[in-house]
Amino acid sequence: MMTTREIAHLVNGRLHGDADRTLSDVAPLDECGPQEIAYVASEKQLPALRKVQPGAVLAHGDLLPQLPDPAQTPVITVDDPQAAFIEVMLRFRPLPQRATIGVSPNATVSPTAKFGPDCNVHPGAYVGDRVVLGARCEVGPGAVIGDGVILADDVTIHANVVLYHDVHVGPRTTIHAAAVIGADGFGYRLVDGRFLHIPHTGTVVIEEDVEIGAGTTIDRAMIGKTVIGAGTKLDNQVMIAHNCVLGKHNVFASQVGLAGSVTTGDYVQCGGQVGVADHAQIGAGAALGGKAGVSGVVPGGQRYAGQPARPEKDAVKSYIAMTKLPEMRIQLKTLASQVEKLQSQIDQLTRFPESRAA
Amino acid sequence: MMTTREIAHLVNGRLHGDADRTLSDVAPLDECGPQEIAYVASEKQLPALRKVQPGAVLAHGDLLPQLPDPAQTPVITVDDPQAAFIEVMLRFRPLPQRATIGVSPNATVSPTAKFGPDCNVHPGAYVGDRVVLGARCEVGPGAVIGDGVILADDVTIHANVVLYHDVHVGPRTTIHAAAVIGADGFGYRLVDGRFLHIPHTGTVVIEEDVEIGAGTTIDRAMIGKTVIGAGTKLDNQVMIAHNCVLGKHNVFASQVGLAGSVTTGDYVQCGGQVGVADHAQIGAGAALGGKAGVSGVVPGGQRYAGQPARPEKDAVKSYIAMTKLPEMRIQLKTLASQVEKLQSQIDQLTRFPESRAA
Amino acid sequence: MMTTREIAHLVNGRLHGDADRTLSDVAPLDECGPQEIAYVASEKQLPALRKVQPGAVLAHGDLLPQLPDPAQTPVITVDDPQAAFIEVMLRFRPLPQRATIGVSPNATVSPTAKFGPDCNVHPGAYVGDRVVLGARCEVGPGAVIGDGVILADDVTIHANVVLYHDVHVGPRTTIHAAAVIGADGFGYRLVDGRFLHIPHTGTVVIEEDVEIGAGTTIDRAMIGKTVIGAGTKLDNQVMIAHNCVLGKHNVFASQVGLAGSVTTGDYVQCGGQVGVADHAQIGAGAALGGKAGVSGVVPGGQRYAGQPARPEKDAVKSYIAMTKLPEMRIQLKTLASQVEKLQSQIDQLTRFPESRAA
Repeated sequence: MMTTREIAHLVNGRLHGDADRTLSDVAPLDECGPQEIAYVASEKQLPALRKVQPGAVLAHGDLLPQLPDPAQTPVITVDDPQAAFIEVMLRFRPLPQRATIGVSPNATVSPTAKFGPDCNVHPGAYVGDRVVLGARCEVGPGAVIGDGVILADDVTIHANVVLYHDVHVGPRTTIHAAAVIGADGFGYRLVDGRFLHIPHTGTVVIEEDVEIGAGTTIDRAMIGKTVIGAGTKLDNQVMIAHNCVLGKHNVFASQVGLAGSVTTGDYVQCGGQVGVADHAQIGAGAALGGKAGVSGVVPGGQRYAGQPARPEKDAVKSYIAMTKLPEMRIQLKTLASQVEKLQSQIDQLTRFPESRAA
Repeated sequence: MMTTREIAHLVNGRLHGDADRTLSDVAPLDECGPQEIAYVASEKQLPALRKVQPGAVLAHGDLLPQLPDPAQTPVITVDDPQAAFIEVMLRFRPLPQRATIGVSPNATVSPTAKFGPDCNVHPGAYVGDRVVLGARCEVGPGAVIGDGVILADDVTIHANVVLYHDVHVGPRTTIHAAAVIGADGFGYRLVDGRFLHIPHTGTVVIEEDVEIGAGTTIDRAMIGKTVIGAGTKLDNQVMIAHNCVLGKHNVFASQVGLAGSVTTGDYVQCGGQVGVADHAQIGAGAALGGKAGVSGVVPGGQRYAGQPARPEKDAVKSYIAMTKLPEMRIQLKTLASQVEKLQSQIDQLTRFPESRAA
Repeated sequence: MMTTREIAHLVNGRLHGDADRTLSDVAPLDECGPQEIAYVASEKQLPALRKVQPGAVLAHGDLLPQLPDPAQTPVITVDDPQAAFIEVMLRFRPLPQRATIGVSPNATVSPTAKFGPDCNVHPGAYVGDRVVLGARCEVGPGAVIGDGVILADDVTIHANVVLYHDVHVGPRTTIHAAAVIGADGFGYRLVDGRFLHIPHTGTVVIEEDVEIGAGTTIDRAMIGKTVIGAGTKLDNQVMIAHNCVLGKHNVFASQVGLAGSVTTGDYVQCGGQVGVADHAQIGAGAALGGKAGVSGVVPGGQRYAGQPARPEKDAVKSYIAMTKLPEMRIQLKTLASQVEKLQSQIDQLTRFPESRAA
C-alpha cells in the first residue's frame, strides 16, 4: 500500500487532488480499478481513460487540462511518466532477489571450469571444460555451456540455452531461454553433386549489455568472429548467420533474419520479420520497416520499407500507386481507345477535308 | 487385422463389395497397397486413386459413381470420411497409453511444488518453488517449470519446454517441445544513447484447450497479462509478443509473428509467416493469408492478403495488374508517341491546311 | 607454424615469392596480419586485400597479375583456393578429436535402448525405450531421444535437441541444438465450433548426410512419413510441416517455412524466409529467392522471386516497373490531358475549319 502523497514523493512529481488515497498496485490503463494507479502516455489514451475509474493517474503535466477532475481522481504529473510508472511498479512489485544457490549438485560441471564469486548454476545445467565465468553469473536449468566458453561478470543465461564451444559473452548480457549461440555457419561447397560442409573454426563474440531473445540463433564465423555489438537488443527467434558483425545499440524485433557476413553500423533498427541478404552493409541509424527485404549497401540515417526495400517515402508512393493499379489499367485502355478514335478522326480530316462541317 | 465388414460397422458406414477383405493398416492414398485402406477426401484425389491398388476405400457416398468398381475394390461410404478414417486409423494404431511414472527421481522438484493425482514428471525436468500442477499433468524430459507456475488438469508439457515464473496454463492444453512461455517482453527506453530494459512484472495466461507448437515463444506482459484464448491453436515457431490478447479458437500457422499489444477476436486465422504490427486490432473471423503484413484496425469476417495487407479481392486485382506492369509501361510509351504524332499532325493541319490531300 | 613452402606443398600449389615465410594461422582477409595467410576468392576482394598486409595469400593463378608483388607478399596459386584454404585452416586449427565418453552416468537411458560401438551419451541426455543407435553416435547434453527412435551410424545430435518417438535418422546426419523433430502435425477438424486435433500416427524419416540447423522444426506425418532426402541441408529456424517430402540435396536457408504435404525434387534451393503453401510441388533444381512465396506446381530448373513468386526475370521486370509507378501515374495524367486537348482541337477543326491558320 502507498498513498498518493508517497507516490508523488517517490517519483518527485506534483500531486493534484487527494494526498491520502491509498493504492495497492499498478495496472494497465484499461483494467485499472480504484485501488490501482495507471499512467497515461499520450493524448491517444484519453478515451481509454474515460472508460475506467483508476485510483490515481500518472501523466505528463501538459495533459493535466484534459484529464478527469483531480478532485475525483488524483493526478501526479511528472516530466517522464513512463519512467515514473516503472519506479512505482517496482515499488509495488519488487523484482525477485537473486538467491545465491551456488553450483547445484544436480548440474554437470567440468572440474576445469572456473567460477567468479556468487555464481549460480541451476540443476540440469551443463558447464564444459575450461569454461570461465565472471562474478554473479546465472546459468539456468538445462542450459548448456560448451567447452572454452567465457562469460564475463553479471551474465544471465536462462533455461535450456545452448552456447557452443568457445563463445564469448560480455558483461551484463542476458540470453533468454532456448537461444542457441555458436552453431556452425551454413556454408557448403558443391563437389561432385554433393554439398560438403565448410568447417567453421571461428567463434561468436557478444559484447556488453546485450540482450538476446528466446529461441534466437547466432552462428559462429568460419574463421573470424560473428560479433553482436555492445548494447544491442535482439528479440525472440532472430537469426544471425555466420560472420555477421553488428554495431552497437542495434535493436532487432522478432523473427528478423540476417544471412552471412552482413555488417551494421550503430543504432540500426529492424522491424519484425526483416530479411537481410548476405554481405549487405547497413549504415548507422538505418531503420528497416517490418518485413523489409534488404541487400547490398544501405546508407544509414533513414527509413526503409518494402521487398526489395527502398527509402520508406518511395516505397509508400509505390504502394499507393499499386493500389491504384487496377484503375490505371482501365485508364490506359480508355486512353488507347480515345487515341485510336482521334487518329481515325485525323485521318478522316487529312484525307477527306470536305467531310468537315463547313 | 480387420475385415471390411468390421470397419464398415465401426464407422457406421455402408459397405459396397467384398465384406471379408482383411486389412492390416491405413495408408496414405499414394502409398496404399492391397493390405491397407485409404480414404478419398474429394474428386481431386481420383487420379491418385487410379494409380494404386488399395485393399479398400473410405469415401463420401457422392463419390461412389466415380470410384473403381467395388467388386474389385470394396468401398465404405460415410458422411464424414475424414472422421471415419481417423477412427479406423486409431483402431489399427492405438495411441500409446499414458503410463503413470510419477515424479522421476532424476527430475529436480521443489519441495514446495504441489501435484494433483497421476502427474508424470520425467527425468531431467525441473519444477520450481510454489508450482501447482492439476491432475494428470505431464512434464516432459528437460522441461523447466518456473517458480509459481500453475498448470490446470490434463496439461501436457513436452520435452525441453521452458515456462518462466508465474505463467498460468489452462486445462487440456498441450505445449510442444522447446516452446518458451513467459520470457520478458521486448520493451526498452532510450536514455542517454542506451536502451534500458523495461521490467516486465506481468504474466502469460493460456486458457483451456490450447495447443502450442514446437519452438513457439510467448512473452509476458509488462504489467497485465498476455492471453491466449481458449481453443486457440498455434503452430511451430510462432511469436506472440508482450501484452497480446488473443481471442478464442484462433488458428495461426507456422512462423506467424505478432508484435506487442495486438488483440484478436475469436476465430481469427493466420497463414504462415504473417506479421502483425504492434497495437493492431484484428476483428473476429478475419483470415490473413500467408505472408500478409497487418497493422491498425482490421475488420473481422473477411479475408486479407499482401503486404501491407488489403482485402484479398483487392490484393489479387493489384497483383494481376502488377504482372501486367511491364506491358503497361510499353503501352504507355506507345500511347505517348502516338499522342505526340497526333499532335504534330494536328499542328500541321492547323498551320498548313494546304498540306491536306485535296 | 608452417612455412610458405610447407603450405604450398600441403595444397599442391605453386609458390611465388619467399618460401621460408613462417605463418601461424589463417585469418579473414580484412583482419589478416603478417603472421597469417588469407585467401582471395575473386577480383572483388582485391580492394580489401590492398588495405591489409597478410603474411601470404592463397589465390587462383588467374589473379596473380593483379595481386601485390610476390616479392613482398608470397602468393600460393591453386585451382581451387577455397578448398586449399580450408585444408590450411584445418592444419592450423585441427577440429577437436571426438572423445569416447560412453554413456554418462548423468544421462537417463532406458534399459531397452541398444547402442552401437563408440557412442557418446552426454550428461542430462534422455534416451527412451527401444531406441537403437548405430556406431559412433553422439547424443549431446540435454538432448531427448524419444521411444523407438532409430539413429544410424555416425549421427550427431547436439545439445537440447528433441526427437519425438519413432523418428528415423540416417547415417552421417547432424542435428543442431534445440531442433525438434517429430512433433505432431498441425491438423485440425472444426467440429461444433471447436478445432479437434487430428492424431498424427505417422513419423519423420531423415535420410543420410542431412544437416539440420539450430531451432529447426520438422513435424511428423499424419499416417505416412515426412521425409528429408539424402544430402539435404536445412539452416536454422526452418519449418517443415507434416507430410512434406523433400528430395535429395535440397538447400534451405534460415527461416524457410513449408506448409503441409509439400514435395520438392532434388537440388531445390530456398533463400531465407521463403514460404511454401501446402501441397505445393516444387520441381528439381528450382531456386526460390529470399522471401519468395510459393504455391501450386512450380516447374524445376529455374529461378523464382516475389510474393506470389514468379520466374525471377518477370518478377524483376515488374519490380522495376513498380518503382516507376508513381512516375507512370503522372505520365498517365499528362497523356489524358493531352488527349483531351487534342480532342478539343480536332473538334474545333471539324466544326470550325476557318479557325485554321491560313
